[in-house]
Amino acid sequence: MKSVFFISDRTGITTESLGNALLTQFGSVDFRREVMPFVDTVHKADQAIMKINNHYMHEGIRPIVFTSIINPEIRNKFKLNYVCYMDFFESFIPALEEEIGQQASLAIGQSHGISDEGKYYKRIDAIDYSLYNDDGVTSKNFDEADVILIGVSRVGKTPTCLYLAINYGIKAANYPLAETDLKHDKLPKALVPHHGKLFGLTIDVDRLHFIRTNRLPNTEYAKISTCTSEIAAAEHIMQVYDIPYLNTSRRSIEEIAVAIMQSINLHRKF
Amino acid sequence: MKSVFFISDRTGITTESLGNALLTQFGSVDFRREVMPFVDTVHKADQAIMKINNHYMHEGIRPIVFTSIINPEIRNKFKLNYVCYMDFFESFIPALEEEIGQQASLAIGQSHGISDEGKYYKRIDAIDYSLYNDDGVTSKNFDEADVILIGVSRVGKTPTCLYLAINYGIKAANYPLAETDLKHDKLPKALVPHHGKLFGLTIDVDRLHFIRTNRLPNTEYAKISTCTSEIAAAEHIMQVYDIPYLNTSRRSIEEIAVAIMQSINLHRKF
Repeated sequence: MKSVFFISDRTGITTESLGNALLTQFGSVDFRREVMPFVDTVHKADQAIMKINNHYMHEGIRPIVFTSIINPEIRNKFKLNYVCYMDFFESFIPALEEEIGQQASLAIGQSHGISDEGKYYKRIDAIDYSLYNDDGVTSKNFDEADVILIGVSRVGKTPTCLYLAINYGIKAANYPLAETDLKHDKLPKALVPHHGKLFGLTIDVDRLHFIRTNRLPNTEYAKISTCTSEIAAAEHIMQVYDIPYLNTSRRSIEEIAVAIMQSINLHRKF
Repeated sequence: MKSVFFISDRTGITTESLGNALLTQFGSVDFRREVMPFVDTVHKADQAIMKINNHYMHEGIRPIVFTSIINPEIRNKFKLNYVCYMDFFESFIPALEEEIGQQASLAIGQSHGISDEGKYYKRIDAIDYSLYNDDGVTSKNFDEADVILIGVSRVGKTPTCLYLAINYGIKAANYPLAETDLKHDKLPKALVPHHGKLFGLTIDVDRLHFIRTNRLPNTEYAKISTCTSEIAAAEHIMQVYDIPYLNTSRRSIEEIAVAIMQSINLHRKF
């Protein structure tokens, strides 16, 4: 088992995410991962190095160290002869400096959207919006929506809406296609005026059956036959009304969210 | 204005995030940004290049192209003589191959946690949990919580809980410290058995006043004096009961979430 450290002067979210994407290329190897955020002083770097050194001493295997640290004095401390060192800033900043014709400011960035207060409130607003307009509890704010997700119960509408709101500041409402909607084979009235904002989610029958069984075992709701007919009716509505839709079965929340944005041309709001 | 393209064979989330972190080092430059996700065929690469070329023709300025594309045939298409090209995979994969002693699989990764179904359900479970245990509506599931956030109304508890659930699969409940709790200067009874899981959020008075005024202008709730006394009482409880706490005023949701995880030693669940 090889130890991997993700070290950042900020949250480490980007460092971890790119580091993990690189490690998936070596799927058969067993990695032990550790994120070390907020390493923004020489003292904290020394503490982190002590930990890394401990692992190396115990395991006898060179750890991999992914870093993204702006300050060269702090960053350079991690260039240890017993680690495989990769820095996500150092590798690109010089070429960018040359391209842009300007020196990097070396200020620790605020890349997660706190720098601009207006943008911050947009984000909080979108989260509030998605919470208050979840699960079709009300349709009176649909005018405000950037997107309205439709689909059967447990297809993945709520997690997708929350993800869109939190990570992109998009006001995402959702409306469950329930038994009565599906029986009438018609787009619910509340949705008709908002046709251009609708996006459908669908799912494989076996997966929906599994998810619903997990939630409410031995119910009409979870039966294969119910799942089959609900999915067919929902997809039929989406097709008849020409609503773009996506199967969520083998997709992560991230992939669903980005595919929706691409499909109906939505962009980050902060 | 310089055009910047973030091109990925998957969602582009990591590519955009690292690219933006690099660009914050050149704060005075005005960039026009565009994310191009799911560029996973030669045909889609050609379409993307047409768009990039169009921008270059109109603007006469070399665009910056950040990519993270596994397939070399697709990736190499973007090495155009009229762009500043930076690839986040190519720069690190060779060194990792040497370090690990294995060739990269070149399979498009599933780094957002869909690969393992068990992990996927953990994530959905955590989102459900945080939704159902928001705003102190019930305390009967606190046993299940990984963390319980406390603080005055509008300090940032709900967005933080949702972020922890969605991005880390952490079951995060929250409990608002309301007038009655604050008046009695005691930790609410429902929280006492869960002391080890508590984390407090606090905020600057002027910021809370601004946020509450935005929400409910001209109310007792939004008054500076109310904000001042509520924050003082809440911080007093956190101090007396030795509950770790953090000021959310100048922090992004990401920073708050990661700082909480670091403080009470929580780790990613998926």
